[in-house]
Amino acid sequence: MKLPEGGPACDAVPMRRRDVLNGKHMWVYIEDLPRQVGQEVTLRGWLYNKRSSGKIHFLLVRDGTGLCQCVASKADVGDGAFAAADHMGQETSLEVTGIVREDKRAPGGFELTVKSIKQVAPSTDYPITPKEHGVAFLLDQRHLWVRSSRQHAILRIRSEVAQACRDFFSERGFVLFDAPILTPTSCEGTTNLFELEYFEGRKAYLTQSGQLYAEAGALAFGKVYCFGPTFRAEKSKTRRHLTEFWMVEPEAAYFNLDDDMALAEDFVSYIVRRVLERRAPELKALERDVSKLGPSCATPYPRITYDEAIERLKAAGAAINWGDDFGGDEETILSSQFDRPVMVHRYPSACKAFYMKQDPARPDVALCVDMLAPEGHGEIIGGGQREDDYETLRGKILAHDLPLAPFEWYLDLRRYGSVPHAGFGMGIERLTGWLCGIHHIRECIPFPRMMERLEP
Amino acid sequence: MKLPEGGPACDAVPMRRRDVLNGKHMWVYIEDLPRQVGQEVTLRGWLYNKRSSGKIHFLLVRDGTGLCQCVASKADVGDGAFAAADHMGQETSLEVTGIVREDKRAPGGFELTVKSIKQVAPSTDYPITPKEHGVAFLLDQRHLWVRSSRQHAILRIRSEVAQACRDFFSERGFVLFDAPILTPTSCEGTTNLFELEYFEGRKAYLTQSGQLYAEAGALAFGKVYCFGPTFRAEKSKTRRHLTEFWMVEPEAAYFNLDDDMALAEDFVSYIVRRVLERRAPELKALERDVSKLGPSCATPYPRITYDEAIERLKAAGAAINWGDDFGGDEETILSSQFDRPVMVHRYPSACKAFYMKQDPARPDVALCVDMLAPEGHGEIIGGGQREDDYETLRGKILAHDLPLAPFEWYLDLRRYGSVPHAGFGMGIERLTGWLCGIHHIRECIPFPRMMERLEP
Repeated sequence: MKLPEGGPACDAVPMRRRDVLNGKHMWVYIEDLPRQVGQEVTLRGWLYNKRSSGKIHFLLVRDGTGLCQCVASKADVGDGAFAAADHMGQETSLEVTGIVREDKRAPGGFELTVKSIKQVAPSTDYPITPKEHGVAFLLDQRHLWVRSSRQHAILRIRSEVAQACRDFFSERGFVLFDAPILTPTSCEGTTNLFELEYFEGRKAYLTQSGQLYAEAGALAFGKVYCFGPTFRAEKSKTRRHLTEFWMVEPEAAYFNLDDDMALAEDFVSYIVRRVLERRAPELKALERDVSKLGPSCATPYPRITYDEAIERLKAAGAAINWGDDFGGDEETILSSQFDRPVMVHRYPSACKAFYMKQDPARPDVALCVDMLAPEGHGEIIGGGQREDDYETLRGKILAHDLPLAPFEWYLDLRRYGSVPHAGFGMGIERLTGWLCGIHHIRECIPFPRMMERLEP
Repeated sequence: MKLPEGGPACDAVPMRRRDVLNGKHMWVYIEDLPRQVGQEVTLRGWLYNKRSSGKIHFLLVRDGTGLCQCVASKADVGDGAFAAADHMGQETSLEVTGIVREDKRAPGGFELTVKSIKQVAPSTDYPITPKEHGVAFLLDQRHLWVRSSRQHAILRIRSEVAQACRDFFSERGFVLFDAPILTPTSCEGTTNLFELEYFEGRKAYLTQSGQLYAEAGALAFGKVYCFGPTFRAEKSKTRRHLTEFWMVEPEAAYFNLDDDMALAEDFVSYIVRRVLERRAPELKALERDVSKLGPSCATPYPRITYDEAIERLKAAGAAINWGDDFGGDEETILSSQFDRPVMVHRYPSACKAFYMKQDPARPDVALCVDMLAPEGHGEIIGGGQREDDYETLRGKILAHDLPLAPFEWYLDLRRYGSVPHAGFGMGIERLTGWLCGIHHIRECIPFPRMMERLEP
């Protein structure tokens, strides 16, 4: 079938500029100013900052895509408009029309010589001022705080990370296979689960991971990923915990642990490279030392066994024994020994979930992997090869004191044409936190949810 | 900074083929067979169907990326392997090695002349057979049902739709601004809300829409979108309702209703074109009459006012009066009058939510739009321009008997630099249903959740 003309082609140059405004000026976004030098354009945005020197206002305008200094002289804009601009508070919405000039000293490299200013709506006593505010206050004002340049940079990087995740899997033929949020039972017990009433008194739980469902998808589509919000009702107040966070979880049939690690390092290095390439201004705004991220663009990443990790930890003076799981301190010691993420594989089976496959060569360890980000950011990925033998998996469910009935469908995946398969999960707020060099991941999601925070 | 070599470039040719298998044969996905004609390759998949003619087995193998007929003669594979294949049930997992041949008569256009067959794991009495099954049974077996060719096609189209949505907005500079799932209050009353216990006895609710949060995002970033699961605890059992479904919601500052409609038609036409271009085999598998979709690739889409819609309905004999909202029957009558989606704008304000802006020229109607898909598929988009005046919005919240306190942050968006803004929401299962020509949207999501269905 020949498709009709007239629609936007899939590969069309993205429209970023709006059409003529009132038949006179072009409305442009600040990020498009480099293509408008010498033209008369209109910006539509908000007043971010302002200084004046007698007969000139320097209005720093933001429009969500960037900042632009707008230079307004009393002579050009007229006495009335000039005086009105005098009284505009921070975050006043306004339209500014003028000529685009290149100026290397200006923020962003371009400025506007203003011809006219029109206030859209006022803003008086904007609560977030350039002075320091406490975090609790800022979180209360999260709907406004996201306008600040630092939050702006973090969330634009988060957006890039999310799109990079999807592009990576889409380009590689992984099918998006969204797992349900409402689940009838818990994967691993009901601790840390949010429970709700479904219909007619039934209980439902918010998902902690889409993995089990993604496994069904992998056996149907070969390669799938799910990517959605996941929930932990943990009574935990660390800098690395949110009760609601987004996790991307690929799962592939006929993948073993080695394949899984190769996929994980390709994936993370792809994202790091893309953020460095496309979000340099945001990283700069965050004063991120990007030289620390450069090595993480290249693969392979170092791989060490849990056994070797224990030796390294002991050599570094940590009080740890074989069989112990790692906490934040151990992760920090290990990850500080490498210039890029390190993959620690083959943890003791006892540390890991029931669905992890034991190493046939050594049943006391699981065919699992954690990836630890450098600079003390700790675990960003957890995954591994899944138990694919029916009897073994059934035995493990029973050994973990879990009921069989809710796992019958999951056991079916081993009853009917079981195959080796593997996957992993990556929390995107943690990854964003590492890339941004942010200490607390509460800043890495638009509206963080924590134990004590459900608002706004 | 110069980035190191060695990682996967952002624009690298996607890896779709695995490396050498056991040092001998190449593992390839069926979708990559066209590039392997004459080569010896290994497929890894599942037995989809089988027929035999004495000394030849015709094994139809699926691997998630396609179907391939594998022709195994007793002479080539040996008596033992040939006899073993005789007993393989549907969905047996297996590796098949052989030479790729082009054959226009074969499903997919290629077949394998088999050299060896290796069973990975058995499958006996697979519950979904080629005979007809009831829908309730199939939904109980959803984890296996997704392997069927029809479900496969639908969910691959859903995956394409989701990625097309994200690419559309990403290419146009919209920032992904995920709205929270856990919310402290309801947008519009607690009917149809799932309620859960947060910490220390607090109540939380599952979001019905990310719109209010997206508005905060639009005023910070200019153009944003959120795209996540949304929830409706409706006691409704229609073919167009799920209790959990995915919705994409763009929101843009300085957009009015006309801008919003232009964005919506660009968006939908982009998705339709992309699915027609990239998912033709899946549409064919569904026996979808694609000539019905062609016109929807082209813009503009017809736009009619609610007033005109009422006249059209009356002319068609519907018992409806000005002021009534439309149900499925009215939508079907209207949408059947056009060959592509129709946008109905300016409904009575009384039909719409409190945050919809009234038309200044005519306050009894709202600056809102619904887009109705053709062929009786009904509403796929709802949106409009938001009330941006502080006093008017506050008055409407009170007039709707809603408490002010939970909306203070939302009112802040009008207190501090309010601007005209607009957006819309599109449910992707409904869109997928229309594109696939599927009657009930429960087939348009991997694991549907409905009133009576929370499993598997």
